[in-house]
Amino acid sequence: MTSPDADAGPGLLAPGWAGSAAASETSDTAYLRALLDAEAALTRAQAALGLAPAAAATAVTEAADPGRFDVRSLAERARGGGNPVIPLVADLTKAVGDGYGPYVHRGATSQDIMDTATMLVASRTLAVVLADLSRTERALARLAAGHRDTAMPGRTLTQHAVPTTFGLKAAGWRSLVLDARDRVTAVRDSLPAQLGGAAGTLAAFSAYGTQDPSALTAAYARELGLRAPDLPWHTLRTPVADLAGCLAFAAGALGKAAVDVLTLARTEIAEVAESSGGGSSAMPHKANPVRSTLIVAAARRAPQLAATLYGSLVAEDERPAGAWHAEWEPLRELLRLVGGATRDAAELTEGLRVFPVVMREHLGLTHGLIVSERLSAELSPVLGRARAKALLTELARRTYAEGRSLAELLAVEPELKDVDLGELADPARYTGSAGDLTDRALERR
Amino acid sequence: MTSPDADAGPGLLAPGWAGSAAASETSDTAYLRALLDAEAALTRAQAALGLAPAAAATAVTEAADPGRFDVRSLAERARGGGNPVIPLVADLTKAVGDGYGPYVHRGATSQDIMDTATMLVASRTLAVVLADLSRTERALARLAAGHRDTAMPGRTLTQHAVPTTFGLKAAGWRSLVLDARDRVTAVRDSLPAQLGGAAGTLAAFSAYGTQDPSALTAAYARELGLRAPDLPWHTLRTPVADLAGCLAFAAGALGKAAVDVLTLARTEIAEVAESSGGGSSAMPHKANPVRSTLIVAAARRAPQLAATLYGSLVAEDERPAGAWHAEWEPLRELLRLVGGATRDAAELTEGLRVFPVVMREHLGLTHGLIVSERLSAELSPVLGRARAKALLTELARRTYAEGRSLAELLAVEPELKDVDLGELADPARYTGSAGDLTDRALERR
Amino acid sequence: MTSPDADAGPGLLAPGWAGSAAASETSDTAYLRALLDAEAALTRAQAALGLAPAAAATAVTEAADPGRFDVRSLAERARGGGNPVIPLVADLTKAVGDGYGPYVHRGATSQDIMDTATMLVASRTLAVVLADLSRTERALARLAAGHRDTAMPGRTLTQHAVPTTFGLKAAGWRSLVLDARDRVTAVRDSLPAQLGGAAGTLAAFSAYGTQDPSALTAAYARELGLRAPDLPWHTLRTPVADLAGCLAFAAGALGKAAVDVLTLARTEIAEVAESSGGGSSAMPHKANPVRSTLIVAAARRAPQLAATLYGSLVAEDERPAGAWHAEWEPLRELLRLVGGATRDAAELTEGLRVFPVVMREHLGLTHGLIVSERLSAELSPVLGRARAKALLTELARRTYAEGRSLAELLAVEPELKDVDLGELADPARYTGSAGDLTDRALERR
Amino acid sequence: MTSPDADAGPGLLAPGWAGSAAASETSDTAYLRALLDAEAALTRAQAALGLAPAAAATAVTEAADPGRFDVRSLAERARGGGNPVIPLVADLTKAVGDGYGPYVHRGATSQDIMDTATMLVASRTLAVVLADLSRTERALARLAAGHRDTAMPGRTLTQHAVPTTFGLKAAGWRSLVLDARDRVTAVRDSLPAQLGGAAGTLAAFSAYGTQDPSALTAAYARELGLRAPDLPWHTLRTPVADLAGCLAFAAGALGKAAVDVLTLARTEIAEVAESSGGGSSAMPHKANPVRSTLIVAAARRAPQLAATLYGSLVAEDERPAGAWHAEWEPLRELLRLVGGATRDAAELTEGLRVFPVVMREHLGLTHGLIVSERLSAELSPVLGRARAKALLTELARRTYAEGRSLAELLAVEPELKDVDLGELADPARYTGSAGDLTDRALERR
Repeated sequence: MTSPDADAGPGLLAPGWAGSAAASETSDTAYLRALLDAEAALTRAQAALGLAPAAAATAVTEAADPGRFDVRSLAERARGGGNPVIPLVADLTKAVGDGYGPYVHRGATSQDIMDTATMLVASRTLAVVLADLSRTERALARLAAGHRDTAMPGRTLTQHAVPTTFGLKAAGWRSLVLDARDRVTAVRDSLPAQLGGAAGTLAAFSAYGTQDPSALTAAYARELGLRAPDLPWHTLRTPVADLAGCLAFAAGALGKAAVDVLTLARTEIAEVAESSGGGSSAMPHKANPVRSTLIVAAARRAPQLAATLYGSLVAEDERPAGAWHAEWEPLRELLRLVGGATRDAAELTEGLRVFPVVMREHLGLTHGLIVSERLSAELSPVLGRARAKALLTELARRTYAEGRSLAELLAVEPELKDVDLGELADPARYTGSAGDLTDRALERR
Repeated sequence: MTSPDADAGPGLLAPGWAGSAAASETSDTAYLRALLDAEAALTRAQAALGLAPAAAATAVTEAADPGRFDVRSLAERARGGGNPVIPLVADLTKAVGDGYGPYVHRGATSQDIMDTATMLVASRTLAVVLADLSRTERALARLAAGHRDTAMPGRTLTQHAVPTTFGLKAAGWRSLVLDARDRVTAVRDSLPAQLGGAAGTLAAFSAYGTQDPSALTAAYARELGLRAPDLPWHTLRTPVADLAGCLAFAAGALGKAAVDVLTLARTEIAEVAESSGGGSSAMPHKANPVRSTLIVAAARRAPQLAATLYGSLVAEDERPAGAWHAEWEPLRELLRLVGGATRDAAELTEGLRVFPVVMREHLGLTHGLIVSERLSAELSPVLGRARAKALLTELARRTYAEGRSLAELLAVEPELKDVDLGELADPARYTGSAGDLTDRALERR
Repeated sequence: MTSPDADAGPGLLAPGWAGSAAASETSDTAYLRALLDAEAALTRAQAALGLAPAAAATAVTEAADPGRFDVRSLAERARGGGNPVIPLVADLTKAVGDGYGPYVHRGATSQDIMDTATMLVASRTLAVVLADLSRTERALARLAAGHRDTAMPGRTLTQHAVPTTFGLKAAGWRSLVLDARDRVTAVRDSLPAQLGGAAGTLAAFSAYGTQDPSALTAAYARELGLRAPDLPWHTLRTPVADLAGCLAFAAGALGKAAVDVLTLARTEIAEVAESSGGGSSAMPHKANPVRSTLIVAAARRAPQLAATLYGSLVAEDERPAGAWHAEWEPLRELLRLVGGATRDAAELTEGLRVFPVVMREHLGLTHGLIVSERLSAELSPVLGRARAKALLTELARRTYAEGRSLAELLAVEPELKDVDLGELADPARYTGSAGDLTDRALERR
Repeated sequence: MTSPDADAGPGLLAPGWAGSAAASETSDTAYLRALLDAEAALTRAQAALGLAPAAAATAVTEAADPGRFDVRSLAERARGGGNPVIPLVADLTKAVGDGYGPYVHRGATSQDIMDTATMLVASRTLAVVLADLSRTERALARLAAGHRDTAMPGRTLTQHAVPTTFGLKAAGWRSLVLDARDRVTAVRDSLPAQLGGAAGTLAAFSAYGTQDPSALTAAYARELGLRAPDLPWHTLRTPVADLAGCLAFAAGALGKAAVDVLTLARTEIAEVAESSGGGSSAMPHKANPVRSTLIVAAARRAPQLAATLYGSLVAEDERPAGAWHAEWEPLRELLRLVGGATRDAAELTEGLRVFPVVMREHLGLTHGLIVSERLSAELSPVLGRARAKALLTELARRTYAEGRSLAELLAVEPELKDVDLGELADPARYTGSAGDLTDRALERR
């Protein structure tokens, strides 16, 4: 028998999610528990509608204890019929015993149980994800508010463009996290139970006496805390595709913040640092941005896992030969990756160290050219557009050649003696609406 | 100069979308038009706020006529800076002339225009998609209602399982189409304009005199019929990811119906046929299910295109070096594929021929075993569970061996002389809740 | 401590590979063993070049026993530095003891060990794959030879086209299997050891006294049975991309045979059957084509896993922050999926039941139109091209309407009284070069 | 009628390949030409074997002039049957005229012509790719040789690790380019013609009088400069999968160099620069690394396009309904992307500016800690292992705190007064085997 979390798989190749709550919620044992929850809920729902004795519901519910089943044996016997529900029903029926055994899985098909269990696992894992997205969002709100006016170089196509603020950057990361939260929440709230019987007509339940199969579906969903679907969805895979979409989104949203941290943490840039970098087996001095690295690794994988799930929408017949089976592992992997990445994102953002002084220094790296856009706009009325442009082009060339700043070179131009170049050429004063945008973004809850 | 739709690319390799409305809406000329619409809207918005003369707005709007620009030349000059807006601004400025030329693109960055144009193209193409989804949905509603009680084999893992109805199958297809419609509609309604300036701080607009950049963004979005975003989204790619998700979903949703048609149209099955099959270059008698084939081809490609777009969420800095550029063609391709697939789906479903007699015949192919589930449930109370099971197993073996039906073999069993086997063993009477489920599904609008 | 195969992960969601040899070869313990093999080989190689005492090599080799390490603990401690080698080196050093501990991992970097271990695991798993590809190839050769002249309908775009033979079909499946074998073999033979030190310059080995680092690399590779690379390949990921390619190919190659079996095994077609179908939890009579289903499921997933690996070619710097980490799980998953699919393919092809009588019957389903291509070609010289075409078009229409065969209708045409219509209109005699092509294909070894 | 390169599509969204030789080789007109080449070659091959009059071969060859066909019309008429060969055969037959028209496409199926044309297009495009890979390889060889001893920081997980050389980095890039060249060359040399007739049995050719269809295939392939395949490969898609693999590899290989350039060209790093950066529409001073950006964009897309092609290996029956159609555009897109990326890579590497002085300066950024690995190794024999480690840890802390270099701090340690710290602590002298590895890598041709 397997202990509750002994089989997440040790995750030796998965430092991104090993040991995480999401790993526990997606372990084989967690799936086993969810499968058993689905079976027990089905019998209880039948009992509630008078289709099974109350004692049968009790017996199945009691027998449905994951600790009494052998996951490894189930996994290997799953090979015969291609899914683990078949051997599980056999074992559960035996565990319930001759009396109420016939009430196990009555009228259901494997996919009813497997899909329902998958939704339970998804729902439980997304709860963990949402909690860590909240932590992350709050940490980013603090960073954005705290650095509302911390000027730093804005970078486009790897080059300094014009100044921005770290507050606006953090507010942007947060807006993605909130977008992820909204999408994950909407999907989580919509996850349906599955109940259709052999070909999605609920026919067997009628054969066993159900007058109103939709009442049975409703009772079953209620037992499980899932939504009652309009139609059995054996080959109408909207719930799985929606999970794919929101999880790929979440991975990418976190990946944006992480890839920025990786850049800003570079030895030459060093404008931010992770709270405690990972060690190196060869170089004792190194502090690697490990949290960001693992988040980015997850974000590189999630889209292709989601693609497989979107591909499974094309599920032929009343149950497909392959498309369904191809969903199981990629969906679990997506849940794990996003669960792990969210854990890392919470730690990353809560511990991020920000170095405003370095940011400020870097604003000077281009000798003032980082504000050339502003000078071009503001000097045109003074000098005329053509002259302003010619002058700035000439001086831009000279800054690098002479190692002097643009402000310094402009200051000697007699036409500009009345212009407050200190103001105009100060990168920290050319952050535009960054502050206002940050404030507005922080109003979103 | 290029005529409005001469450059969709002839689409020799794309019978799925060549000649479609979606192809026109996504042609290079359509993008050019949208780019020019964005530029003109920006100048008009600035004029509305008093930041540019009204005459400048008029001049730019008049000059922004796609017929006056050379798409090919723009495409080739785009290479230098890596995007087509740079040469376009040069050409548009020249077209506007010295007087108001300086008001072209004032304060904006290439990505403001490119992203906005992309949203315009997406919005226009999704309108086409939604119209064809509606046609498809209505056709499927008619099929579902008309075949509410048309019994046919339910198939799982390629084998006959229990009966279902063609009405339920069509209702299921329709529910996916409605899911697609809902997702596409939600995304279309949320598409934002882009305005941020060089690094997303709107700084240049302030330099040019804007007191309230958010008012400028709002005016610009209003001119374009797009949503005003909370933040510039140069590297917050939610809108693109959302498009990816809804388009991958739509392709898969249509793919489900198409793959079912492909199966049901097989020579040996022939329960449905496309209204007019495609010819063959070698075999005059063949009628290929071409509409379904092309839909399935689109559905095989869409998930991977969406994966690339989800991957571009990981966009470093204030504008990324590659992630953004990697979005343009896959997003257009997704729009085209889904546009073409929706056109094909409308034609497919409107013209689908359904053969209930063949379906009925096929219900007999398994010699009655297709209702063994029901017999097992209903004979247990009569014979006892163990005896019922043993009898059915024995007779199942004999059906194939002797080429006789299960009902025939059961009829000679003395214990069953009072059972209405005609009713119990009639596959057409074992469709469970298919009718009710169909009715309920059709209530959804 | 973990038993050798207790941690493949039970594989509850993976009936495709649970319990397979490939699962054992890719378990966490198998990776642990390979990591330890790499460490021990490195010390032995240093000893062989006089850079470490022989006793150190012995001590490290003895300590490098997977049973002495705790996989779960390693996995969780891997989080800190982002890879499992860091805690493993600590544990191994402790296990070796103070005397020779300093010789553990000397001069190496984590990636040297991790990449080398990955190549060992790949090599060992590919051996399993190749053995099962051989079984599959031999089974297919038998099927092709045995059914060299078994005529059946050729199907294109789901419709009967012209006749083919089952022998040619099986020979085609086999040619793909041989293509897979050739690609897998070439990659397996090229798998390199990894040795570069902290940034791929082998500098630390020189610091520890190596005169000729390339001799060290050679000795290390020799110890492991891997190829000595020309350059350290920390960010030159050709070996991983090559694995991705050959594994995606193998999955797809097997998928082709499986998807054909799924079609041919449909209830309405039933020209082949798996040796023993999988059961159903709801319908006792069903025999599902489970082996094919699981192969197809693997083939649906492999391309996207390979895409992630190809994406990791874009690995920045001397070691990347994410691209490398994103390789580990997808590569293992690909190895497992292909390992499992190959096992299933061997069983599928060895046990496949073929029903030539059914195939022969189906040749008649189109009332003889399946040979209309031939009649058109052969009757043109007799009737004139235009007359032949007109006649065939007319008669084709009548076959379906009247339920009579084309041969029957042709026979009454006076102009054709001297033509041997029995020969010309017999589908089984219109298999073209199928026999010769099969013979030739079988010559390939 | 369409001019030879008027329809590559203007490529407004594709600065990566617009205007390139690969764009011309993959335009709709290029495909049209290849389709016509295939048709003409087939008739010529039949004439060579005495199956058609020599004059028919001449007539078809003369008529097969792309300038005489309307690509747009063909594209739109392709919709009916789902591929462009059907309308093309009609138009070509008409162009040839009544006399020899019947010899057009005789015995062939659409896929014979489409696949053959695709292989011709691929072969012609890969020639362009190979030429630019050669240019790139030579440029990189010059860079590697010229900077054999140019020391620079080796960077791992974004942080300075130990020194490396720019020569070794360039040699590594070159080794990937050579790997790409080898893979592309092998695939190009193996591209087969396609000839199978309606269901791959070559039956129609026999009906038209061919005694030895394999001789016909050989003659046809010879006419086209393609390989004669062992079997028709309508659903044995090895050639397409092999193209997918080598193209995804090539894109990734170039992407590695490009992503390194993007990093090294950052404003703060500036160790390299593209020969002429792309301009910005908003900031006149910016010089963006556009070539690298576009290469990286291609590398982000290629793996998913390849995934779709690998997915099409699962092609059911004798010709599939969708899998084949899903290949056409992704394969063309891959050819274009790689063609464009190779053009960019040639320009990038030929024009790359390298700044050794900046690299040298950066070696000092970590206050000497970049050689801590060496000091740890070399001081242990002098100080004892434990003392060496403790000392270095203490001094490492002090370097940052006091802003002094490690060498400076070590120099005051009395125990080290006889050690040549200038040598030991000079990063430029700790490049290990970088020079030797570079030399050896350059031996590869």
